[in-house]
Amino acid sequence: MPHLFKRNRALLDGALQAMKTREFWTPFPEVPSGKIYGETARADGEADFAALVGKPFSIPDHPEDVHLGKEQSPWGLELDLSYPAAPVQTLLAASEAAFAEWSQTNIETRVGVLLEVLSRLNKKSFLIGHATVHTTGQAFPMAFQAGGPHAQDRGLEAVAAAYAEMTASALDAVWQKPQGRGEPIVLRKHWTVVPRGISLTIGCNTFPCWNSYPGLFASLATGNTAIVKPHPMAILPLAITVKVLREVLAEEGLPVDTVLLAADEPETPVTREIVEAAAVKIVDYTGSSTFGGWIRKNAGDALLFTEETGVNSVVITGTGDFSGMCANLAFSFALYSGQMCTSPQNIYAPKAGIDTDEGHKSFDEVISGIAAAIDHLLADPEQASSICGTIVSPATMKRIETARSAGRIVRDSGTASAGRSATPLIVAVGDEDKLHEQECFGPVVFAIATGTAAEAIDRAACLARDKGAITAAVYATDQHLIDGAAASFARAGVNLSVNLTGNIYVNQSAAFSDFHVTGANPAGNASLTDTAFVAPRFRRVMIRWPISD
Amino acid sequence: MPHLFKRNRALLDGALQAMKTREFWTPFPEVPSGKIYGETARADGEADFAALVGKPFSIPDHPEDVHLGKEQSPWGLELDLSYPAAPVQTLLAASEAAFAEWSQTNIETRVGVLLEVLSRLNKKSFLIGHATVHTTGQAFPMAFQAGGPHAQDRGLEAVAAAYAEMTASALDAVWQKPQGRGEPIVLRKHWTVVPRGISLTIGCNTFPCWNSYPGLFASLATGNTAIVKPHPMAILPLAITVKVLREVLAEEGLPVDTVLLAADEPETPVTREIVEAAAVKIVDYTGSSTFGGWIRKNAGDALLFTEETGVNSVVITGTGDFSGMCANLAFSFALYSGQMCTSPQNIYAPKAGIDTDEGHKSFDEVISGIAAAIDHLLADPEQASSICGTIVSPATMKRIETARSAGRIVRDSGTASAGRSATPLIVAVGDEDKLHEQECFGPVVFAIATGTAAEAIDRAACLARDKGAITAAVYATDQHLIDGAAASFARAGVNLSVNLTGNIYVNQSAAFSDFHVTGANPAGNASLTDTAFVAPRFRRVMIRWPISD
Repeated sequence: MPHLFKRNRALLDGALQAMKTREFWTPFPEVPSGKIYGETARADGEADFAALVGKPFSIPDHPEDVHLGKEQSPWGLELDLSYPAAPVQTLLAASEAAFAEWSQTNIETRVGVLLEVLSRLNKKSFLIGHATVHTTGQAFPMAFQAGGPHAQDRGLEAVAAAYAEMTASALDAVWQKPQGRGEPIVLRKHWTVVPRGISLTIGCNTFPCWNSYPGLFASLATGNTAIVKPHPMAILPLAITVKVLREVLAEEGLPVDTVLLAADEPETPVTREIVEAAAVKIVDYTGSSTFGGWIRKNAGDALLFTEETGVNSVVITGTGDFSGMCANLAFSFALYSGQMCTSPQNIYAPKAGIDTDEGHKSFDEVISGIAAAIDHLLADPEQASSICGTIVSPATMKRIETARSAGRIVRDSGTASAGRSATPLIVAVGDEDKLHEQECFGPVVFAIATGTAAEAIDRAACLARDKGAITAAVYATDQHLIDGAAASFARAGVNLSVNLTGNIYVNQSAAFSDFHVTGANPAGNASLTDTAFVAPRFRRVMIRWPISD
Repeated sequence: MPHLFKRNRALLDGALQAMKTREFWTPFPEVPSGKIYGETARADGEADFAALVGKPFSIPDHPEDVHLGKEQSPWGLELDLSYPAAPVQTLLAASEAAFAEWSQTNIETRVGVLLEVLSRLNKKSFLIGHATVHTTGQAFPMAFQAGGPHAQDRGLEAVAAAYAEMTASALDAVWQKPQGRGEPIVLRKHWTVVPRGISLTIGCNTFPCWNSYPGLFASLATGNTAIVKPHPMAILPLAITVKVLREVLAEEGLPVDTVLLAADEPETPVTREIVEAAAVKIVDYTGSSTFGGWIRKNAGDALLFTEETGVNSVVITGTGDFSGMCANLAFSFALYSGQMCTSPQNIYAPKAGIDTDEGHKSFDEVISGIAAAIDHLLADPEQASSICGTIVSPATMKRIETARSAGRIVRDSGTASAGRSATPLIVAVGDEDKLHEQECFGPVVFAIATGTAAEAIDRAACLARDKGAITAAVYATDQHLIDGAAASFARAGVNLSVNLTGNIYVNQSAAFSDFHVTGANPAGNASLTDTAFVAPRFRRVMIRWPISD
């Protein structure tokens, strides 16, 4: 058994077991605590990050014609980072050269390498946390989790799913076919796992690690080589990842170009050229449906997994805990200023209002209740900043401005205390408004009054089915309504959270338990991590021969 | 547990076990014997078939505006069969209506229905054998196996693979997340299997059941409804299948329109209209790459699985059993006159000849040896007919004529004793001939002399990678060459048979053990039956709620 596989076996076994039971499990603690990560971990992470800023980022032996990079921290820190870069043809040639060896390694060797990488990435979670802060504009607590342990969880999940599928059927068999009273026919059979070729992982600006790790690790585990193409404004977290991957590959005497970084700048993007390359056989993409559509048309016969645009909704038909509901939703709307693919955007509630533990509440009272809860949550500027983070893209500021005139402003967007920030805007809109039927990425909440509770469910589910959605939330006390919502959102292919209060939010998706993106609506087909996400990344090819030979 | 699931549980368990070990297993005996199928089975099958000929084929309650059908037996029997048919829009509406209920049935109910159907189809294997004879032109022994038990094996394999994947992770879980010293967060989660919608199975002329059952049964098992579109010249075997499916559905009080027949005639095809329908979410297709390409462009967002054109090769570099090799290949070339997707077409051998147990053989002697073995095999007219069957498409006769002028004729094509028939043509071709680099469907064998044994392997593997291939065979005594061939054909994504002699042939693909089509070259992506073939036919959608609720 390869030593790295042996060393990290418990990680794999734990993941495999959890993915069956879907119960809570993680090997990578989400709390950025010195008690867990070591007393000096926090300081070390800060120092490691400070040592990177203002210097060219080096990746030993990486193809390198120039150093480039124009990342800008939404928090205002001067980054002045640059990365090794080479022409696309150089990267493709290097990846193909590495493929010859990497594709021939056995399953346990590959999986062992990747488990070791995840273990080492976990130890760098503070560094990755800071790198994530200054590229995504997230506040540190979220950046630590989403760039560190939660991303590592999803990477491990992908490795485990790939391992399970590669080993689901025997790789060697003796096939003995009876021949009546004659001697049986006996064949020996052997199957080889054959990967597809070069994989391309296209990262996004908001969750560079979390959204990239599943495809990247799944492709590598199944024997493909990988080119990691980060968003030009969020390179560092993935550059660190690529560097760690190459370190372990080098230690094991495996080709380091198995993983390559394709860094670029906003004015000179390289993504299209890589997508169009015939040698690229797998594309994992997170981003807008507009560019997703372009990839679908231009990726040739490459296998394509995407997470794209969607509109997530909250349906409020009643609650036994009005203040708990408002506080819970306030956090969901404010967290990272609505820049999560799981952030809710629309609130649907009956215009006649709802029954609650605090008595009947009119539609306006429901929306105002949520607005007040947001005000309360964000009253302390430091806490506001630590929840909202910053706005990663200037385009989001424009969207907020446009949304302000879509209807009646219930809560205006303000600033958190640091960086380019914006707190949630709540706008009550009527049927004539069409803006709310599109993804309005950022801290924008549309409140829509409907005829009945059933209509509220129906409208949210229909929108999800037509425009895509990754999450939905419903608040209801009537079990009939909950059952109806369950059926409607199942048809719309959206995971539904019911009556969440307290410290668990519709935005949250737990690895090993929640399948993130169902694949059953336009928000994407990359279901993290089901078998469909890993199985077609490789093929089985057999050789068979008579046993006498 | 649903009664049909309980009744047929052993079928499922046997399949699940065999698919893991890849050892020999089948519940459906391939020998058309009265001792196995019942003393009257043969006579009953003949009588049942005779009772169908010359009459409209009835499918109770099937949408039916007209009766149509123009099948012609390549054996010359007057069929005069017709089938219920309705406009595509009528079929789509009926399928959508059935989807509402079928998609909501639970996994064990659906799987139980399909297992029962396969059991009943098995009992009709003699009838299906005769139906297959007179639509595909196969001789009875092959028609019985390929239309009956072997197709049922592949159907069962698809059902088992779907069942395994649907039940691979828990459908209910309690998720309990520790909160330090505080109370844990506890959520209950439930997942629903959500099918994609209407599936379309496009059958081929040569193996209507064998090639259609995997996609059809996989789609149905995962909760999709199905429209079965047979080749216009091979409707009857699938019409019988649809009828049995609907019989069991009706008995169980489930919507019979879960499975519909879309029969058409050559002059008025309906396939394109169904493929283009937005409601069709899965397409399984067997046929030419030309029409496969059209489907890829026009199937919208439907999931597509195909088995398409390819060129299968035999590489001869040496053998320890020259006569055994020649006899084995003679049967492979003659069987169903090369009209199998697994039939070999090209022979590559070094121009300097090969070493054998009968001493050195020149290239010409090798090819002549195979030609002589074919002559010997087909010397008895009745045996010739029972091996070669007939030529199903008149276009194949033209292809033979064209191939005759491609090079030097080593063995000319003749006739078997009955129907429209043609025995194998062997043509030795030079490098200037390009015909052999295309699929030349039918009893056409091209013999190509190469510089070395390694070059023979290389050329066959490169052609497979470029043009697609489903099988490859190599004869070699040098283990180095075998290892090289194993690596080359693995890269080309082709299953390789080594040194086959005796009663096992490169054409044969055994369910539960051999993955048919690897998906790793242009011959198709429908790997029968791996997880990638079943997993994306459905999606999992979750509902989660706090446990206190």
